[in-house]
Amino acid sequence: MSHSGQKNPPSQSREVPTVSAVTSGTVSFARPSPEEPRFTQDTIVTKRVFTLSELELECGRRIKNVQIGYECYGKLTESGDNAILILHYFTGSSHAAGRYNADDPEPGYWDAIIGPGKAIDTDKYFVVAVDCLSNLYSRNPMVITTGPASINPDTNKPYGADFPIVTMGDFVNSQYALCQYLGIPKLHAVCGISMGSMTALEWAARFPNYVQRVLGVIGGDIANGPYLISLLRQWTAPIFLDEKFNDGNYLPEDPPLDGLAAALELVTLTSLSPQWANRVFQRRPADRDAQPSERLENRFAIESAIERTAKARATLADANSFLRLAKAVQLFDITPIVDRITAKIFWISARHDKLLLPEYAAHGVKTLRDLGINVQTDVIETDGGHLDGLNEIRSKSEEIKKFISSSIET
Amino acid sequence: MSHSGQKNPPSQSREVPTVSAVTSGTVSFARPSPEEPRFTQDTIVTKRVFTLSELELECGRRIKNVQIGYECYGKLTESGDNAILILHYFTGSSHAAGRYNADDPEPGYWDAIIGPGKAIDTDKYFVVAVDCLSNLYSRNPMVITTGPASINPDTNKPYGADFPIVTMGDFVNSQYALCQYLGIPKLHAVCGISMGSMTALEWAARFPNYVQRVLGVIGGDIANGPYLISLLRQWTAPIFLDEKFNDGNYLPEDPPLDGLAAALELVTLTSLSPQWANRVFQRRPADRDAQPSERLENRFAIESAIERTAKARATLADANSFLRLAKAVQLFDITPIVDRITAKIFWISARHDKLLLPEYAAHGVKTLRDLGINVQTDVIETDGGHLDGLNEIRSKSEEIKKFISSSIET
Repeated sequence: MSHSGQKNPPSQSREVPTVSAVTSGTVSFARPSPEEPRFTQDTIVTKRVFTLSELELECGRRIKNVQIGYECYGKLTESGDNAILILHYFTGSSHAAGRYNADDPEPGYWDAIIGPGKAIDTDKYFVVAVDCLSNLYSRNPMVITTGPASINPDTNKPYGADFPIVTMGDFVNSQYALCQYLGIPKLHAVCGISMGSMTALEWAARFPNYVQRVLGVIGGDIANGPYLISLLRQWTAPIFLDEKFNDGNYLPEDPPLDGLAAALELVTLTSLSPQWANRVFQRRPADRDAQPSERLENRFAIESAIERTAKARATLADANSFLRLAKAVQLFDITPIVDRITAKIFWISARHDKLLLPEYAAHGVKTLRDLGINVQTDVIETDGGHLDGLNEIRSKSEEIKKFISSSIET
Repeated sequence: MSHSGQKNPPSQSREVPTVSAVTSGTVSFARPSPEEPRFTQDTIVTKRVFTLSELELECGRRIKNVQIGYECYGKLTESGDNAILILHYFTGSSHAAGRYNADDPEPGYWDAIIGPGKAIDTDKYFVVAVDCLSNLYSRNPMVITTGPASINPDTNKPYGADFPIVTMGDFVNSQYALCQYLGIPKLHAVCGISMGSMTALEWAARFPNYVQRVLGVIGGDIANGPYLISLLRQWTAPIFLDEKFNDGNYLPEDPPLDGLAAALELVTLTSLSPQWANRVFQRRPADRDAQPSERLENRFAIESAIERTAKARATLADANSFLRLAKAVQLFDITPIVDRITAKIFWISARHDKLLLPEYAAHGVKTLRDLGINVQTDVIETDGGHLDGLNEIRSKSEEIKKFISSSIET
């Protein structure tokens, strides 16, 4: 890993085109300056970019000009002892809190627990949220990532199918470089949701002296098991069947949108729950004048709703990136290094999670505790499924606040 | 519904080509004769065919020359009071017990509970197992079904995309015609597994005076809810993405096998469980010399195993039939007629079922009981998932035997 470029980060900011309210904002290449206003709920969040001149991946390949998007909320103390890193889920980004524009309809995904006075209190902590390598939403101008859709500096063409396999370890190494650049001597906490909780555990195992606390929400085991591995394959299956996929060698202007949308449908469904579906849709048809019993193509409301959402998301996403993220999750396994963890851990499951089952988390927690690692647990009891780690996270505010501010001696 | 042809069923038998051990056997158009030996474990099962000259479907379309494959085990009493109907699961057939040939490697799917002295005792009962309309395995010569792959007598071409939507009600009506043909005045019991348990409930609601007992194994609610509806859509998604599918207008000799195989992979995975996957595969690679971390296409063992099985199954299956079965399951909803049920019901769930969740069954059972219907329940406690309704059914032998022989007065 080389991050020689970090001492001279480009300081120009660039305007990006507005795609939708949640994809608009300003991207800055500058490190947050001491003069910038402290983050408050009314403060506009700036998307920042850190550039690493080269990163050696676990597979042995080196990629150049690695860009990592990030957002900062709050301020780093002089001693640098108050930094918290936030790691996103499979379809997430670094937009964890706040708004890019005052009129954004939605704030970042964990805004309920990140902000002044909130569970992760930006009056006290310097919170950094990052985009992972090969982020799914490479077509969203507010996501900054190096992945298959990026230009390979050696060829001046997108990597496409040639982009290497990336791992949670690669995510961690790239993020460690960012933390160094930001002058963070140690992380007060690493917090991750879903895939991000895997990255957080990887952090704790790879940099045990650097990570003091790990908060994992809707996470699973310390290694992903075969059932989840196979489900991830099923997620990807529609992409391979889309004739436009062409072994990953599709044109950026003509991507396999149908396959990607179908993949995203399955992601969405497995992230929700029967109770959620009953509440929102029941057995309603999508169109009262086109009953599902009348024609094969007539749909129930839930089918159309999930399809619509997935098709919209697919336009901002990239199929090759999807495949690499799925691979990274399949490969997640810290078994060989888990005993290096010294951080204390808070592991929160969702009772009705149909994707990262509470039983996966229970197995992982047992393994960690058997090694003498300090793990506390909690359960989100609402019945919305995996996404309750987003939608119902506020319900664990007090517990998270207490964990974040807890002593690491206890 | 017209079954005028029933009085003169064709009596010739025809030899069918052997595709594999479980797809070989003899098909007979004859009703079982009194001279035939009683079914025992050593007896060869004969596949039979019943032809219905015309069937009016719920959608209003009439289909001609409807063929229904069936198998009989045991003998009908003179009074006809000992008949039990067996209804199969989504990927099943009428081959519920016994073997077509002495050297078949596997017997029918519920052989553990159907046979002389077994839970469904063929020394006492005349057991009839049927192929549903639009059975998935239309290319298996031992499956006899009328569906999209059948020849439309009006055009002398396969129905293909033109085959109508079929429902559980259509299954029941076709099976009722068969029961009439066989001289069954009343069904002692209707037993179904998974999709078959839905058909069994539909039977009890449509023919309340004809059905005395219902055994449903790994069944769900009395109406399938939106989460399951959406999952069924996800099952079908790969078929639509296969360019050979062509809106269902594919050539019989060049079907969308890749899409169908991917669909069957998801069916298989959702029918199993994490515990099963852990026991069988752990995180082993498919090929020790092709680690999943090395190339995007290198697989874990579970991925390759499920793919292999699905590809093999796809060669005997039909994509248009798959879509119609998925639709039939989506449409299952006996809510408007459930109060007509008079049968007593035994509803057995599998604790670790990831497909028809025990909570679906619990909701259905509550609805039935609230209507005053006699429902007893049981749970298969093993952890293999939905397929434990097949693999572990033996564990409920005593309970099933007791239910089948129980008085209908109690």
